[in-house]
Amino acid sequence: MPPEIKAVTLPADGRIRAVVDAVLPCVDGGRFAVKRVEGEAVEITAHAFTDGHDQVRVRLCWRAEGAPAVEEVEMTPLFNDDWTGRFTPPGPGRYRYTVCAWVDHFRAWRVELQRRVDAADILLAAQAGAALGEEAAARAAGADKKALGQWAKALRKRALAAGRTALDQMDQIEPEIEAIKTLALDPQLAELAARYPDRRFETRFSATSVTAEHPGELPLVVDRERAGFSAWYEMFPRSASVDEGRHGTLNDVAERLPYVAQMGFDVLYLPPIHPIGRSKRKGRNNSLTPEPGDVGSPWAIGAEEGGHKDVLPALGTLADFRALVAKANTLGIEIALDIAFQCAPDHPYVKQHPEWFRWRPDGSVQYAENPPKKYQDIYPFNFETDDWRALWLELKSVFEHWIAQGVKIFRVDNPHTKAFAFWEWCIAEIKSRHPEVLFLAEAFTRPKVMHRLAKLGFSQSYTYFTWRNNKAELTDYFNELSHGFGHDYFRPNAWPNTPDILNEHLHHAPRQVFITRLLLAATLSANYGIYGPAYELMEGRPRAPGSEEYLDSEKYQIRHWKLEPDQYASLHTLIGKLNAIRRVHPALHSNAQLRFFDTGNPLLIAYAKRALAGDGMVTSAVLTIVNLDATFRQTGWVHIDAAWLGVGGTESFEAFDLLSAQHFHWHDGGNFVILDPAEMPAHILRIKP
Amino acid sequence: MPPEIKAVTLPADGRIRAVVDAVLPCVDGGRFAVKRVEGEAVEITAHAFTDGHDQVRVRLCWRAEGAPAVEEVEMTPLFNDDWTGRFTPPGPGRYRYTVCAWVDHFRAWRVELQRRVDAADILLAAQAGAALGEEAAARAAGADKKALGQWAKALRKRALAAGRTALDQMDQIEPEIEAIKTLALDPQLAELAARYPDRRFETRFSATSVTAEHPGELPLVVDRERAGFSAWYEMFPRSASVDEGRHGTLNDVAERLPYVAQMGFDVLYLPPIHPIGRSKRKGRNNSLTPEPGDVGSPWAIGAEEGGHKDVLPALGTLADFRALVAKANTLGIEIALDIAFQCAPDHPYVKQHPEWFRWRPDGSVQYAENPPKKYQDIYPFNFETDDWRALWLELKSVFEHWIAQGVKIFRVDNPHTKAFAFWEWCIAEIKSRHPEVLFLAEAFTRPKVMHRLAKLGFSQSYTYFTWRNNKAELTDYFNELSHGFGHDYFRPNAWPNTPDILNEHLHHAPRQVFITRLLLAATLSANYGIYGPAYELMEGRPRAPGSEEYLDSEKYQIRHWKLEPDQYASLHTLIGKLNAIRRVHPALHSNAQLRFFDTGNPLLIAYAKRALAGDGMVTSAVLTIVNLDATFRQTGWVHIDAAWLGVGGTESFEAFDLLSAQHFHWHDGGNFVILDPAEMPAHILRIKP
Repeated sequence: MPPEIKAVTLPADGRIRAVVDAVLPCVDGGRFAVKRVEGEAVEITAHAFTDGHDQVRVRLCWRAEGAPAVEEVEMTPLFNDDWTGRFTPPGPGRYRYTVCAWVDHFRAWRVELQRRVDAADILLAAQAGAALGEEAAARAAGADKKALGQWAKALRKRALAAGRTALDQMDQIEPEIEAIKTLALDPQLAELAARYPDRRFETRFSATSVTAEHPGELPLVVDRERAGFSAWYEMFPRSASVDEGRHGTLNDVAERLPYVAQMGFDVLYLPPIHPIGRSKRKGRNNSLTPEPGDVGSPWAIGAEEGGHKDVLPALGTLADFRALVAKANTLGIEIALDIAFQCAPDHPYVKQHPEWFRWRPDGSVQYAENPPKKYQDIYPFNFETDDWRALWLELKSVFEHWIAQGVKIFRVDNPHTKAFAFWEWCIAEIKSRHPEVLFLAEAFTRPKVMHRLAKLGFSQSYTYFTWRNNKAELTDYFNELSHGFGHDYFRPNAWPNTPDILNEHLHHAPRQVFITRLLLAATLSANYGIYGPAYELMEGRPRAPGSEEYLDSEKYQIRHWKLEPDQYASLHTLIGKLNAIRRVHPALHSNAQLRFFDTGNPLLIAYAKRALAGDGMVTSAVLTIVNLDATFRQTGWVHIDAAWLGVGGTESFEAFDLLSAQHFHWHDGGNFVILDPAEMPAHILRIKP
Repeated sequence: MPPEIKAVTLPADGRIRAVVDAVLPCVDGGRFAVKRVEGEAVEITAHAFTDGHDQVRVRLCWRAEGAPAVEEVEMTPLFNDDWTGRFTPPGPGRYRYTVCAWVDHFRAWRVELQRRVDAADILLAAQAGAALGEEAAARAAGADKKALGQWAKALRKRALAAGRTALDQMDQIEPEIEAIKTLALDPQLAELAARYPDRRFETRFSATSVTAEHPGELPLVVDRERAGFSAWYEMFPRSASVDEGRHGTLNDVAERLPYVAQMGFDVLYLPPIHPIGRSKRKGRNNSLTPEPGDVGSPWAIGAEEGGHKDVLPALGTLADFRALVAKANTLGIEIALDIAFQCAPDHPYVKQHPEWFRWRPDGSVQYAENPPKKYQDIYPFNFETDDWRALWLELKSVFEHWIAQGVKIFRVDNPHTKAFAFWEWCIAEIKSRHPEVLFLAEAFTRPKVMHRLAKLGFSQSYTYFTWRNNKAELTDYFNELSHGFGHDYFRPNAWPNTPDILNEHLHHAPRQVFITRLLLAATLSANYGIYGPAYELMEGRPRAPGSEEYLDSEKYQIRHWKLEPDQYASLHTLIGKLNAIRRVHPALHSNAQLRFFDTGNPLLIAYAKRALAGDGMVTSAVLTIVNLDATFRQTGWVHIDAAWLGVGGTESFEAFDLLSAQHFHWHDGGNFVILDPAEMPAHILRIKP
């Protein structure tokens, strides 16, 4: 199999000598976008160099995607050909950035001239510098052009005049040579010349990336701040009635808003609010034989009243929904909707678009199944349908419909059971018109699948936190989330419970376990949420021993929750305090600066988060210590790094417990801690830099 | 700056559901080639999965670059959506590989059928399977087509017949339903169907890479074995005369070949053999005032007798050179030539191509300088010349000229002072016609520049080994070389000395230091070399205290070396033994399997290399322990991992010292070692798996 020998093509211009490599951050060679939030500076590093001893100049180039104008930021050298630069995008949207570099002959000339000692060499170099100055003048305009031209002219004239001195008499004109050198090295002129560089042979980063449209330009998605910092509260609208036995409505949810706001949540997430299928409807506790009056699962979407764009009549109307959104906004709460792309057998789509489903040999529609299990109340879409274009457009229009009603956050149900390509297209399409819209991926599945969805554009992702309980698990997992390869695109959202997951450690658990899991979620992850009122009321009854399903799950029935004011029967006061702590302390608004500290005790976990200013100064630091043992007091020595916390170099510093309002004096190194779960299983210490 | 809103383009086919990601190895997203040697299997891993519960099939696709036929290898799943596959390219050359995947509906159907228990479901699934069988038959031919068709027909017929049984009588035909299930699950038919998969919606890896010509195909360069395993000997031909005072010739080098072969070297590398410039010639010890008769530096290339394609008349003729190559080949030695792209002032290029050089304002050619230092005997090429195409073609023709004389290995002098783009083009161009040709980069410069040259195509690279002396330095550096990010493209070649570098630890050093550095180079690096006879004769006199220059350096004068047969005055016998050990033990032929072991003593370094068969079995293992202290005996406990060495699970095993021919009994865990530098500062232990 001797392949044909082909001449290797010469490049378009072989005089391009600078190299730009390893532009970071970069997800999969530019195939996917890096994510940042509004107001956050984007820090770019790159390798840049050229052959030989020449100097390079390096610039970071960025623009809003679609915008023709490119902004340029001069990058600064670090060590060993590493360069750094930063920019702050003006707002949410899609951006592109790349790095360019060129050989800076003016700078090389200047650096060399500084080191020259031979008089004849200095005079020749001055003439060479005059030529470079004239070239810069030719690229300049106005006063700059004039200044550069005059400088070049003067330099040449004096160098030529001095050059007429015989070589063996050079030492006689030493002061003039020094003066010429001084003129040549004029720092203001150097600065002026630097403004008009010769970029004919500029290199642009091109190592990887992707499209002809964006050669070498890496993609960046900037989301609004809530993408990076949010506290979610999930509740079932139909359980929102204050009257036991009455089906809750969207208006009841509106009445519940002050309660949610008091707890300090900023996202109120509602399970699907659409008409619920009647055919094959499930009964209480997932029974296959429903009783009359059973309300069915909100995820069995669609009935004769309508589908994904409609409101279940028992909940109210589209107008009620818009009113709910409006009232929530006045309290600083956003309504997040659940989008579950699947149909009940009586969903209008089934008749209107039979080609969007799979069919069985007996002429029935293929329901969801995982043999021998059957989910006959759910018809999945067939993403391999020949009519995929119409399907995709319709599904996208569901988001657009709710965006028109004021929704800006979607929680997407099981995105990993729909085609990946659909999500990439759909999210990009939505965000191109509505960059403020956020998507949370509910993909409790294998790691690579979760990561793929995050890369495709989901703004936040559910995590394995729900199953990470002991100190080693928590440490490994949150180190991975904060510092692992996904940190540029995977934004974790940590939930101690969901309607689907009552983890075993919450089964009939005491109050302190609910507190512990809540504190961990809220301080380890900038985005977190709870499913309530089950959580604050510490509901811990599973459907069966070992099952992750709730007994009398709201998925299949209405629950009437008694919203106790008693702080021992409800965690709502503590939750309010916790969310207030989160809001006030910028350290807790991001996961990038998370560090665990040794405690010498496997039941005592300690970690800190901090916020940094542009110059690297610590502006906020919070140190959390949690007793993971529900029963016994635990003690330990927490070994901290005071400098990392921004309080290095002092004898001791104040550590103020934001939970108990106690003042402690801490110092660098080991500090003794004792935590009694019967009182409060944690310290959340504000460290004042 | 609100960018224009543009619809995001729908993909060409939205039904493509499989994902292929993270294909490894991969250098800079496919921008540069991975390197392997002939006969070595190339192991590829990838992430592959699809949405939902469906199964994927994954294939590794590879071909010689330019060859239309693609070879396919079925990949096998590991854990968590990781897949692996391997292929062995047939010989040196350039290859491309990628990974493709598709959703395997036949397999999903079969897996689900195995789990089905409901009789009616089984009969429906059998019909669905019959349809899949017919589709496979339509893609098949000959006997396979017939077999698949018959199976599908029989399956459908029996399923339909049984299906006519009333639903409430199904249990009466249980044996028939079991028989249908057995027929449907026929493993031979499954295998047959798997040979004719439905690949309409196949995904091909495309995350990164580069060119329209090679969509998603990652580049691979396969070199002949010497690229990965070689022992180099450098000598100055003009010092090869046996008669003191006579200028050595290429014929003298030919006479010296048996001596080199006895030492076991397989590459004999000669500094430039071209005419040496007379203008500004340097004298002995780099003097600016040469004496009459001074021979000048071989790197000051070019005089009226010719340039880079000519032989210095005092050395002989092109015919002599060809004869030398031929004789060397009979002894298993290859001649490597030094290519230094720079000119003496009297090089013919200067007059013929003045536009290839930079000019100073006084009308003279710009010589090399690093102010205030001047190298007036060297004119660098100007790679920014407008005539760069002609320059590149001429430089490439220098390699071609020597390839025509039989040279297959080039040591390139200071490649980092020439344009990077030139090297990428030139090496690719040469290797497209001569895949056997190897290039060693002499770039003693900053790490990123060295790595760039390796990525651009250099087959081997000089390293920092020359300056890495203590245990921590050696451990860190060789771990980086073997396991760091460059391991797929950067092939180290370790030299304890070169004509330019007499490192301080060799200054007036005793015999055991020369032995230690030699052993380290030869056992840590599969490619290594020495500059002789300076090395084997233990020349340790610097030009000045602290200088890395040799006193009376051969760079500027002829040396007459007395090739002592006495083994205390020369290391040549030990070198011969060492190179024989290297040759016999495959463990020492590669750096991929290098591991350091704890000794508890900072002056005692221990490390092993091993070779693995395709199935992961250890086929060769060599454990080296070196006393880094030139003066004192050192002892320590070497903590080994017997299983890693292929001798796990035994009470003890033989460790045979290949240097001293001593037998030791070693075991897993700690083993006591004592090494006296006065005798031999090292063990090289063969561990027999």
